[in-house]
Amino acid sequence: MAENKADLYRLKLPEDLKKLSFAQCDDLCRQIRTLLIKTVSKNGGHLASNLGTVELTVALHRVFESPKDKIVWDVGHQAYTHKIVTGRLDKFATLRQEGGISGFCRPDESEHDAFISGHSSNSISAALGIAYAKKLQGDEHHAIAVLGDGAMSGGLSYEGLNNAGKSETNIIVILNYNEMSISRNVGSMAKYLSQMRTKSSYLKTKTAVERVLDVTPVVGQPVKKVVRSSKNAFKNMLLHSTFFEDMGFEFIGPLDGHNIEELEAGLRTAKAMHKPVFVHVNTVKGKGYAPAEANPGEFHGVGSFEISTGNPDVVSADSFSSVMGKELCRLARADKHICAITAAMKYGTGLQYFAKNFPERFFDVGIAEEHAVTFCGGLASSGMIPVFAVYSTFLQRSYDQIIHDLSIGGLHAVICVDRAGIVGSDGETHQGIFDISYLTSIPNVTVYSPSNYDELRLCLKKAVLEDKAISVVRYPRGREASNKVLDSAGTGHVHIKNGGNSLILTYGRMFDNVSAAVGKLGKDGLKCDVLKLVKIFPIEDEIVKIIKEYDKVYFFEEAYKFGSLSEKIAAECGNIEAFAIGDYVHHGETADLLDELGLSAEKIYRVMKERSSHAT
Amino acid sequence: MAENKADLYRLKLPEDLKKLSFAQCDDLCRQIRTLLIKTVSKNGGHLASNLGTVELTVALHRVFESPKDKIVWDVGHQAYTHKIVTGRLDKFATLRQEGGISGFCRPDESEHDAFISGHSSNSISAALGIAYAKKLQGDEHHAIAVLGDGAMSGGLSYEGLNNAGKSETNIIVILNYNEMSISRNVGSMAKYLSQMRTKSSYLKTKTAVERVLDVTPVVGQPVKKVVRSSKNAFKNMLLHSTFFEDMGFEFIGPLDGHNIEELEAGLRTAKAMHKPVFVHVNTVKGKGYAPAEANPGEFHGVGSFEISTGNPDVVSADSFSSVMGKELCRLARADKHICAITAAMKYGTGLQYFAKNFPERFFDVGIAEEHAVTFCGGLASSGMIPVFAVYSTFLQRSYDQIIHDLSIGGLHAVICVDRAGIVGSDGETHQGIFDISYLTSIPNVTVYSPSNYDELRLCLKKAVLEDKAISVVRYPRGREASNKVLDSAGTGHVHIKNGGNSLILTYGRMFDNVSAAVGKLGKDGLKCDVLKLVKIFPIEDEIVKIIKEYDKVYFFEEAYKFGSLSEKIAAECGNIEAFAIGDYVHHGETADLLDELGLSAEKIYRVMKERSSHAT
Repeated sequence: MAENKADLYRLKLPEDLKKLSFAQCDDLCRQIRTLLIKTVSKNGGHLASNLGTVELTVALHRVFESPKDKIVWDVGHQAYTHKIVTGRLDKFATLRQEGGISGFCRPDESEHDAFISGHSSNSISAALGIAYAKKLQGDEHHAIAVLGDGAMSGGLSYEGLNNAGKSETNIIVILNYNEMSISRNVGSMAKYLSQMRTKSSYLKTKTAVERVLDVTPVVGQPVKKVVRSSKNAFKNMLLHSTFFEDMGFEFIGPLDGHNIEELEAGLRTAKAMHKPVFVHVNTVKGKGYAPAEANPGEFHGVGSFEISTGNPDVVSADSFSSVMGKELCRLARADKHICAITAAMKYGTGLQYFAKNFPERFFDVGIAEEHAVTFCGGLASSGMIPVFAVYSTFLQRSYDQIIHDLSIGGLHAVICVDRAGIVGSDGETHQGIFDISYLTSIPNVTVYSPSNYDELRLCLKKAVLEDKAISVVRYPRGREASNKVLDSAGTGHVHIKNGGNSLILTYGRMFDNVSAAVGKLGKDGLKCDVLKLVKIFPIEDEIVKIIKEYDKVYFFEEAYKFGSLSEKIAAECGNIEAFAIGDYVHHGETADLLDELGLSAEKIYRVMKERSSHAT
Repeated sequence: MAENKADLYRLKLPEDLKKLSFAQCDDLCRQIRTLLIKTVSKNGGHLASNLGTVELTVALHRVFESPKDKIVWDVGHQAYTHKIVTGRLDKFATLRQEGGISGFCRPDESEHDAFISGHSSNSISAALGIAYAKKLQGDEHHAIAVLGDGAMSGGLSYEGLNNAGKSETNIIVILNYNEMSISRNVGSMAKYLSQMRTKSSYLKTKTAVERVLDVTPVVGQPVKKVVRSSKNAFKNMLLHSTFFEDMGFEFIGPLDGHNIEELEAGLRTAKAMHKPVFVHVNTVKGKGYAPAEANPGEFHGVGSFEISTGNPDVVSADSFSSVMGKELCRLARADKHICAITAAMKYGTGLQYFAKNFPERFFDVGIAEEHAVTFCGGLASSGMIPVFAVYSTFLQRSYDQIIHDLSIGGLHAVICVDRAGIVGSDGETHQGIFDISYLTSIPNVTVYSPSNYDELRLCLKKAVLEDKAISVVRYPRGREASNKVLDSAGTGHVHIKNGGNSLILTYGRMFDNVSAAVGKLGKDGLKCDVLKLVKIFPIEDEIVKIIKEYDKVYFFEEAYKFGSLSEKIAAECGNIEAFAIGDYVHHGETADLLDELGLSAEKIYRVMKERSSHAT
């Protein structure tokens, strides 16, 4: 290839990457960045993290041979460039749209996506499984995990490191160090990595020093000179083995993550070692797009925005998250026992208000949901009232801790389950469709599912100040319905009587759709009563009593059907026809997905109309 | 107190501990060891780990003031001495017996048990919650986590360390280093800790070196001399900060864990620091009882045994675990893709046979159930057939990984769920009563519940060689029933027709009790048919068809009722009366517990007789 400009759309990727000069690579990276900014500005998605890994991705595909070498992207919110250079350039405009490509890695989307991604910190463990499989199969190709420093705060990463370091496999772990996870990173490991970031290239320096020590029988002048100038530098910079070396890895870095030549040299060295290697790469989150570089946190996950200014197309208003965050502040002002805990989701869960007002009672524990819950147990055991705000899908990681460290001891803790139900564009790995089944199958748990802000405030207050044991308040992503058909001042249930023979049960956001459907049925002359649950579990005797008054009962539920609330109530009452979710739910617009699942107002209307017609 | 011998039974504990001389302490420790050996030889329990912590416990209660200072014992299988010196000496003979004291720590048993224990690696997180609560309440007392090196392999410990090190709290983490968890410890952290074990007291040496460096403007002779003699020693022993210092802790140790004076000095130093401190204590597992010192693994958890020889009272025969282990070997001989994974339970799960025969395909990942499952995902994604054998209660920790890293991608992995159902003396934290609810509420999961060895072999073979996606084979602790009333050659279901109008559904071990009850009912002239499920999930159409043939259907199930199989089938079929478990189950003999739960043959007989009488 001649030394002309690289053209993203004319190259055969990923093969042609290896033929480019460094200058051409830089040019290509600029084109990729432009595409990233353009696409995410329209479709929303993860921007800052993806802008940080453009050069790293190009270097990886130049040095390694995907899919024979397997690259496992942790979380996957930094793998857009990987998608672009592995056959998905044409489809990149469909990113995160229904029917389009996923915002995360999916092996069923491309053979270059070595493992599923979405939940943090799984990459080392998955890559180690792949590396061992290759070893057993006599395949010398590499398994490469790429993870951010945020993912390093998860215990699963540590378990992976602990097993990988001593393995005799071709595993390479690449730390994409950008000084933050979704919020600013926390914890001692973050501080430790931050210190490493500022070192001059560790391998180079260390090797030089070791050479001196090997050659000279006594400590030579160079070392002495360094010692004299700085004891800490001596201790930390030159002779101090890194944690990762202690874990059994060879260590390379820190490398400049935006310098293809340096990256390539480091990766080639790692590749040649044929043993576990840890590569530390420094990148800048948001690199190349000024608004994102200035505010990487705000540009982590975004909706559509205007490129020239970086301003979001939709001005953010109150959401279930922010209402929760503000109400919790109100409660905390009056009660000094209330603490708030987040696992690296301060903004996502609306806890920024609490963090600002009550910093000493606010705990961001990093991406460590297991610790978060056990830590809540410790606080609760000593008289505090911990409130853990977390996305439904990530709370899955705390299942055992909820049982062992909260429930068995009957400790009082509140879990605010955000993003409960369908979340939309993030897809299978992020839909909150399991919390109903696992939370209602643990003793000592009360679950509320408010369907509007007023109910959320009331439920939160009751959960925090009145309830005992574990109280869960769950609510969807986004905002309350603008057409609040019916409101409730309570935290129990609302029985809406329209003079019907059949009853529809529902809770949470689904009430909006049911209300709309029932209104439409009414216009058709078909009457349906509605029982809206706010406190959804344990199932109260009164609910069973109401259900038994009806011949036919239908249940519309935005949850996985096995273990669902409808299943639990059906087992108790019999004769309930349940409409819930039968499988994982792919990505798309939430409203579209609910329609496909038979849970939109229109689909509820149709199925109920059909049932009503049969009945008459 | 005069310098006479200490008498365990005459002291007012724990207060009087502080009044004893070191010699009296040693004497007391001997008495405690005798009591430990005597009691465990009768009641069974954890012996080796408890023999290792006698002096450490005495030292802790001399230096700190429980319950104002909170001691959190990780797992709790090393807290017997703690129980003895905190008011439970009189009840110690009832250890692990129904109505007696628990084998683990339980806050509802004593105010000295600061937090629940049973599942590994939660102590640092819980202690940190307690430490922060104290800080917020202006209480200067300490929170102390005590954990073994085995617990350090769990990611939750790392998440705890990562948050604790940077905290400005009075937390002390004590590592009880005894070179093994339940099996011999694995992983890089274990190796790292093992290196530390052999160092001379780190704090002392390091302080000395730092003093030299502070005082002399150039590197002095002492350091040079060390450098000359050993570069590694220089690097590792003197100036290399430990991982725990990198995490933000002050580091003390290693201390001789059987020398009260040295322990006390170290603990007093830690106490005086009023910041996060990590104390490394070396102990000998099984200390003071020759058979346990010689075979600490075998004396980790034991049944009753003869003290003079250490021989178990009951000679071990085949169990569900060993049958699984042997059958897996048979399969692995023919298929080189089969890998076996354990989380530090090689012997408990019967995988010792596999480990011996196929070491290259055997993986003990340490107490790291999350990693174990994601690692299985990696193996499966690259064409291997991973089989993870794990206790039901510990698999709870892998809930998210089963969903995210196996199920969504439809990967084929086998999970052998050992200790499914009631386990007996280990109590609430160890009963396997949740696996049915969480495993049958995840897509792409098939669950088998064989009730005898033949079925286990058939199910395992089908799961490993024929099934796709996730296949779970679950079986109870212990052996098959000697009175196998009925056998099945299949892996589906067995419909036993006695000419009855009512049907009893059941599966697994519970079939033995149902069979016995049905036999007894028959003698009373009451006929009941039985549907025994072997493949229990997904629910097959044929099962629903059979159920609908009967007027009355009863379901006896050794599982938590919410999310249970009976609930799922009832929701589909209606009109099933379910008998399952309504709450956590305390410790006791399994047969007694099943009786209390209404699941013994006698209780099944009685309730069915009552139902049958009403029907006629």
